[in-house]
Amino acid sequence: MSEYVSNVSSGASVGKVEKKIFTIEAGFEVACGRRLAPIDIAYETYGELNSEKNNAVLVLHALTGDSHCAGYYSGEDAKPGWWDIMIGPRKPIDTEKYFVICSNVLGGCMGSTGPTSEDSETGKAYGTNFPVLTIGDMVRAQRRLVDFLGVDRLLCAIGGSVGGMQVLEWSVRYPDRVFSAVPLATTAKHSAQAIAFNEVARQAIMADPNWNGGDYYDGRRPAQGLSVARMVGHITYLSDESMRHKFDRRLQDRCDLSFNFEADFQVESYLRYQGNKFVERFDANSFLYLTKAADYFNLENSWGDGSLMAVFSRAKARYLVVSFTSDWLYPTYQSKQMVQAMKKNGLDVSFCEIEAPWGHDAFLLPNERLDRLMGGFLDRMQAEYAEEAGNAL
Amino acid sequence: MSEYVSNVSSGASVGKVEKKIFTIEAGFEVACGRRLAPIDIAYETYGELNSEKNNAVLVLHALTGDSHCAGYYSGEDAKPGWWDIMIGPRKPIDTEKYFVICSNVLGGCMGSTGPTSEDSETGKAYGTNFPVLTIGDMVRAQRRLVDFLGVDRLLCAIGGSVGGMQVLEWSVRYPDRVFSAVPLATTAKHSAQAIAFNEVARQAIMADPNWNGGDYYDGRRPAQGLSVARMVGHITYLSDESMRHKFDRRLQDRCDLSFNFEADFQVESYLRYQGNKFVERFDANSFLYLTKAADYFNLENSWGDGSLMAVFSRAKARYLVVSFTSDWLYPTYQSKQMVQAMKKNGLDVSFCEIEAPWGHDAFLLPNERLDRLMGGFLDRMQAEYAEEAGNAL
Repeated sequence: MSEYVSNVSSGASVGKVEKKIFTIEAGFEVACGRRLAPIDIAYETYGELNSEKNNAVLVLHALTGDSHCAGYYSGEDAKPGWWDIMIGPRKPIDTEKYFVICSNVLGGCMGSTGPTSEDSETGKAYGTNFPVLTIGDMVRAQRRLVDFLGVDRLLCAIGGSVGGMQVLEWSVRYPDRVFSAVPLATTAKHSAQAIAFNEVARQAIMADPNWNGGDYYDGRRPAQGLSVARMVGHITYLSDESMRHKFDRRLQDRCDLSFNFEADFQVESYLRYQGNKFVERFDANSFLYLTKAADYFNLENSWGDGSLMAVFSRAKARYLVVSFTSDWLYPTYQSKQMVQAMKKNGLDVSFCEIEAPWGHDAFLLPNERLDRLMGGFLDRMQAEYAEEAGNAL
Repeated sequence: MSEYVSNVSSGASVGKVEKKIFTIEAGFEVACGRRLAPIDIAYETYGELNSEKNNAVLVLHALTGDSHCAGYYSGEDAKPGWWDIMIGPRKPIDTEKYFVICSNVLGGCMGSTGPTSEDSETGKAYGTNFPVLTIGDMVRAQRRLVDFLGVDRLLCAIGGSVGGMQVLEWSVRYPDRVFSAVPLATTAKHSAQAIAFNEVARQAIMADPNWNGGDYYDGRRPAQGLSVARMVGHITYLSDESMRHKFDRRLQDRCDLSFNFEADFQVESYLRYQGNKFVERFDANSFLYLTKAADYFNLENSWGDGSLMAVFSRAKARYLVVSFTSDWLYPTYQSKQMVQAMKKNGLDVSFCEIEAPWGHDAFLLPNERLDRLMGGFLDRMQAEYAEEAGNAL
């Protein structure tokens, strides 16, 4: 495996990796009260768990991500995992120091049980017979995986966006199992505007006749609806400024306006491309379930009396909270609200709003500041965790 | 007619009004080079044109508006025209002083010729055989109406959003025919982000199989696609803050989450309602054409050498430019860009950014500040126009 050199860090690639499946044979009960028959959780690990078992870092993926956050499955892969710039030897999440775990969320379509999976009762794909899940359900399934991997307490849980919601949920649901937590570009409760965008995306899918009430696995897939849904989402991942930089009003492969309904502008062509590409890799029902889980996410109601103060009175983690100036999907004020509640509870919190024009997507893009924050925070956490363990002896 | 008292102004209603049709019998050539057979322009007028013919105010409607901007068609009307809070006796656009004209844009579906109109060549509705129009085409048709009404020079052209684009186009295309201009909550060129939202809306319509390439007038209409398109638009008319005030995470007619794909939240229910209501009154093809015209809007390319400086070197109008703090569809910086170019050209410009949490929609909502600005500006314009006419004698 040749050395992978990113723009920002001088780290290497974790190299060839493998997707594994962890099965909870006894089944799994979810928040709505339904019980799923045996469930699979697809996961990957990089680096080695040390003998003290205090170097495990759980990485949580965003809405449509997967367990493949670093490295390559084979030499033919066009691209590495989705956060390869962050994870690897001598990268900020350094796999020479840390044992990195990443799993596909329950309800996803990248190897974990979700609406595309076979319902043992019917022998057919669940479709919309799959239960509506919560972020809490995803985290409970992840906990079982972490148990299975022999990790009592995570050194750190890290994730952005919907992955950040999982980070927050971990830290509040399992305070004794998370030494530290890094919620990036996220929120403690999904706002009305964020729900609105998700609802439009869902309506686009459900308006596609091929969706057929979710029962489409034997026929044509709701590709057009899913494509529109992805286009809506994509706008929210960028920013006015980044779209102006990236596209402005430049025309796509033409010298003049078409005066028809073809894609005149690069931004239109880009969105259509993103929509079509997404359809090849993602399942429409899974998109419905994952957006719904994000919309349901509200730490205040799940763990408090309606206040973030009460929520974080449960928590014990050291936090690094990061927001980005141009992120209008989960704006900085939402991070500040949680930071305030964490601080009032006497928790160890570092907060940073990173200046970046790229909108919500910024957390996934090369960013020296983020790299330094992440690397520095993990170093400190590793030292403090070891010290705490030493004191406890 | 009983006195209509608004929250803000103490004015009255213009009372019973009537939609009229102005026909350009000779046909009308549009920017793309196509020639339309006779075209209709639906319009309404309120107040009286004075003998000097110097009190005409042209009101331009936004994307999906119509000619009915004030008063009632009949006593049974549930609501008055769309800008009744602004237009009427002793209201900011005072129909005791001004002769107000408002027409439905060419390409619309509220009485003016558009894709729903019969194509005399085929005897069927134009559908997507209608030519793609520009804001300039709309304004050229409006000029013909203004000619017909005997007005050589408008006292003022006023409009918000896409109506504001028409205001700008009027002032640059016909500098000698516009004494003053009030572009509200608008932009001199549609941004990549604004194009992106429109493109998603169009894709939602075109993804609906009932759209049928635009040929649906004999069959089922693309209601679901149009509804999704409207939902997308609606989010851009509000703001994060206004949605939090209006809906936050409140549930709709339920005590707990549904754990299915019904509308759990008020914001979802609101959007679905807006989508469904819109379908009853608007035509999907017309929506395609009007959004495309907005996307094509770019004063810099149409009237300049690529700079706003050159654009406004043509203009002679006195301007009142208004933006709103929470309008993220046409943010204040876009108004400032045009104000800067107007000022550098030595034009008489008043600019105001109004503090309002309601997003882009703010220009349509009751606002004392806007009322005072508008009323004061028109008073001053009326005096200056009369003075100028006096000096010219």
